[in-house]
Amino acid sequence: MKQPTAEAITHLRKRIHIIIEGTDTRLGKLFDIVLLIAILASVAVVMLDSVLYMRLQYGTLFFYAEWFFTILFTIEYLLRLFSAPNRLRYIFSFFGIVDLLSVLPSYLSLVFVGVQYLLVVRILRILRVFRVLKLKAYMQQAGFLASALRTSQQKITVFFLSLVLLVTIFGSVIYVVEGPENGFTSIPLSIYWAIVTMTTVGYGDMSPKTPIGQAIASMVMITGYSIIAVPTGIFTSELARNMRPQLQPITCPNCGKFGHAVNATFCDRCGHSLHV
Amino acid sequence: MKQPTAEAITHLRKRIHIIIEGTDTRLGKLFDIVLLIAILASVAVVMLDSVLYMRLQYGTLFFYAEWFFTILFTIEYLLRLFSAPNRLRYIFSFFGIVDLLSVLPSYLSLVFVGVQYLLVVRILRILRVFRVLKLKAYMQQAGFLASALRTSQQKITVFFLSLVLLVTIFGSVIYVVEGPENGFTSIPLSIYWAIVTMTTVGYGDMSPKTPIGQAIASMVMITGYSIIAVPTGIFTSELARNMRPQLQPITCPNCGKFGHAVNATFCDRCGHSLHV
Amino acid sequence: MKQPTAEAITHLRKRIHIIIEGTDTRLGKLFDIVLLIAILASVAVVMLDSVLYMRLQYGTLFFYAEWFFTILFTIEYLLRLFSAPNRLRYIFSFFGIVDLLSVLPSYLSLVFVGVQYLLVVRILRILRVFRVLKLKAYMQQAGFLASALRTSQQKITVFFLSLVLLVTIFGSVIYVVEGPENGFTSIPLSIYWAIVTMTTVGYGDMSPKTPIGQAIASMVMITGYSIIAVPTGIFTSELARNMRPQLQPITCPNCGKFGHAVNATFCDRCGHSLHV
Amino acid sequence: MKQPTAEAITHLRKRIHIIIEGTDTRLGKLFDIVLLIAILASVAVVMLDSVLYMRLQYGTLFFYAEWFFTILFTIEYLLRLFSAPNRLRYIFSFFGIVDLLSVLPSYLSLVFVGVQYLLVVRILRILRVFRVLKLKAYMQQAGFLASALRTSQQKITVFFLSLVLLVTIFGSVIYVVEGPENGFTSIPLSIYWAIVTMTTVGYGDMSPKTPIGQAIASMVMITGYSIIAVPTGIFTSELARNMRPQLQPITCPNCGKFGHAVNATFCDRCGHSLHV
Repeated sequence: MKQPTAEAITHLRKRIHIIIEGTDTRLGKLFDIVLLIAILASVAVVMLDSVLYMRLQYGTLFFYAEWFFTILFTIEYLLRLFSAPNRLRYIFSFFGIVDLLSVLPSYLSLVFVGVQYLLVVRILRILRVFRVLKLKAYMQQAGFLASALRTSQQKITVFFLSLVLLVTIFGSVIYVVEGPENGFTSIPLSIYWAIVTMTTVGYGDMSPKTPIGQAIASMVMITGYSIIAVPTGIFTSELARNMRPQLQPITCPNCGKFGHAVNATFCDRCGHSLHV
Repeated sequence: MKQPTAEAITHLRKRIHIIIEGTDTRLGKLFDIVLLIAILASVAVVMLDSVLYMRLQYGTLFFYAEWFFTILFTIEYLLRLFSAPNRLRYIFSFFGIVDLLSVLPSYLSLVFVGVQYLLVVRILRILRVFRVLKLKAYMQQAGFLASALRTSQQKITVFFLSLVLLVTIFGSVIYVVEGPENGFTSIPLSIYWAIVTMTTVGYGDMSPKTPIGQAIASMVMITGYSIIAVPTGIFTSELARNMRPQLQPITCPNCGKFGHAVNATFCDRCGHSLHV
Repeated sequence: MKQPTAEAITHLRKRIHIIIEGTDTRLGKLFDIVLLIAILASVAVVMLDSVLYMRLQYGTLFFYAEWFFTILFTIEYLLRLFSAPNRLRYIFSFFGIVDLLSVLPSYLSLVFVGVQYLLVVRILRILRVFRVLKLKAYMQQAGFLASALRTSQQKITVFFLSLVLLVTIFGSVIYVVEGPENGFTSIPLSIYWAIVTMTTVGYGDMSPKTPIGQAIASMVMITGYSIIAVPTGIFTSELARNMRPQLQPITCPNCGKFGHAVNATFCDRCGHSLHV
Repeated sequence: MKQPTAEAITHLRKRIHIIIEGTDTRLGKLFDIVLLIAILASVAVVMLDSVLYMRLQYGTLFFYAEWFFTILFTIEYLLRLFSAPNRLRYIFSFFGIVDLLSVLPSYLSLVFVGVQYLLVVRILRILRVFRVLKLKAYMQQAGFLASALRTSQQKITVFFLSLVLLVTIFGSVIYVVEGPENGFTSIPLSIYWAIVTMTTVGYGDMSPKTPIGQAIASMVMITGYSIIAVPTGIFTSELARNMRPQLQPITCPNCGKFGHAVNATFCDRCGHSLHV
């Protein structure tokens, strides 16, 4: 076979890239749908494989199916790598790492006997669904949510820091008050109890038995119950602010100020008329 | 008996329709109240019939009562069908299906021995209460709520998709870390645990025993505890936006002010009439 | 003793009324503080009396203390009745009923042997604290909260109606799917489970064991987890609306329209200048 | 050694104060980082010391480490005391008390055999992290949150008072209905159950068994589930209000428009200068 020219390779790379990344061509759309079905099917196989009754019945089928999908996704990964404009950037991008982790465990299982760990990672393939679907309206709305999260990230950090301090102090206090004889066998475990209680999950595997312990637990519960208001308030006010009527995106012809009130006719910085 | 003329049938249909659907006439109001009492009574019968102590004592009474209500609602269904302007549209409407499912189980129980399934469906009859009551103010307020839900439906879908991904990943990780010996017998069951934990319900039938598992569980709990802020923020900002006073998007022909109150007829800046 | 004149009685009534209801006089303030201490003390006695260890040790002391407080509050009730401007209105007012229920159980215990019932009602005396304290700023803020609740009461009713329907349907479905052998022994009990789960309390005394049941439970949990957004959104948007900048409280001299936009100089209904 | 002059002491005090409190100098920054690492390390030692397996293995190491940190923090406390401009004010400030409580338990353990109590207090040292980090943007955001909490403190107090009344009444009622034979052994314990249920934590260690008790429990759950809306609404509306752009309360001398943007120098309606 004649050696392919650099031109032919570049041309092939572009064509594959259009099929994989693009959704406008018929082949691109077909690729996306097949990929989506393959992801969902492979995840279903992993989940069913963990059910003992199912593994006993269909274990061999699952084994071959898992390797089929692994080979399929490996080929897909190599194609993406081959056709990517910037290979290093792809390898270290979020989806690049997800795609690699989606096939690596199967190969690792040939060396290590920790099959379960492999199963976990294949579930991550489901994250490709977001990129494959590419629904414009949904991605715009997701953008609104992400934007609100970004602008409030400092308030959120302050909140989380306070949470960490609260559960540490509450956990230590309940450890001292209740002690190992009531189930609180160490401070780390008591901090775990404080998290379970403050998030109002309340498993019940550990609960205070002494009156003082129950009084402290009441404080933990009411604190957790009330401060749910904080992240909600932060997020809601940011989202509402993003949705409020925006400034007129015009520039004052005189002083250059950008952005004026909705009903302004004169620039409030220099007094010049906004509409010449 | 003389064969009824087409005119007579149409006239009868209209009269029955007015009684069933309308609430203005005395007969219409009486029909609605009788129907409401019948629905509530039949649902109460079904509920009491499921209590063993009650069934032993009043089983026969319940049996006859259930068939009485079934016959009653069957006649009502046939009357609605007969008087409906568009029969196909009624059969496939939400209430048409509910009305059919409210009587079908009783007849099915003659063939199949799954009496309990029938009981479930009769409970749905309670949904007729909404249509029967027809309280204008309440329906308007319900409309506000429904409207806020509709306009935020894309953000809500993004949120739910994220929830599904989170519980799938968390469930798989905890399955690998804890394993069947600690109660996490399969990935689907572990995903169930992740939902129980992330929604902060926390039954306690399954809870992590290893330190790493408890650390992961802590992440699940704090995630679930915090992201309640998202649907709340979405819904609150949409509802607040709907409740803000809207401006008429018109310009004053005299002074050029854009945006006037909903029921304004004069410009509140210069006094000129808005409608020349 | 000379028979008291009508004038003397009226004068006495007024004086007692000032002491009891008013907080301006020194005697009135003293009365309030003594009453507050008496309420809290009597409630503490009732609570301690229910602890077995305490009752064995101090039972007699509690018995005498309870009767002391009952006599005290009976005298207070009679004084209020005597000095009230409108006796019938007081008897049937909220606090009138609370005051009566705060002493009645003790007398009833002489006839009936349900002492515990009596204990419950004495706890209600603590509601007098609100009226006794009379802190102006707090009552104004409480007024804001109550006002927001009132204006959103129709939306709240729609929400509660939906909750009732949801738990009824979910409860019936889980009863059919899980059945008595899994703990779901009747439809009412299953509805109780649905409430426990949808409010995310999750005791764990009843939890689904079948996969279908767990799938349905997941729907219940995610529904309950998400629709917390609804009452929160309703209440938050009402409260925010109450706090928004208000209209100018002026009347148009020409057409009489009350309430104009913050920066309006002309009436937007008739065009007349607002500032003559 | 020559006796140090008052001047030398003052100079030393100032130098130490700059190192301890200031973060601009290199020595100051180094001090902060070393302190932060020491705090986190000492807290980790306390936590690990409570784990039995760890204490058996490394008990001696922990003992020496704890005394090392205690000596270190004692020296730090004395240095702060020595260099503080106002010593009394430091001793009784929040951090002054925390710093003292962070070393006192170790010395108390020489007298009393309640070692666990000491462990609790050392955890509080972690609160120094906030002061040490001094991140401007985060402290500003924290200020926003704290400000919203302050302005809504009266509404929050009304809310908490209502919570206390609700759990007291609910707890007493459930005690009467269920009784000691169903786990509700006293009114205080039943109030604890009411708090566990109303905050939706739901341990499951106590749950109602009688139908009436379950009906009452349902009311408690739905109440707790719904009134989460109140603190959330309070906090969200205050935070949103703080974030709304404020207007300058001045009038344009030319056209009379009231209310201009914060940094406006000209009227945006007529163009005239706002400051004559």
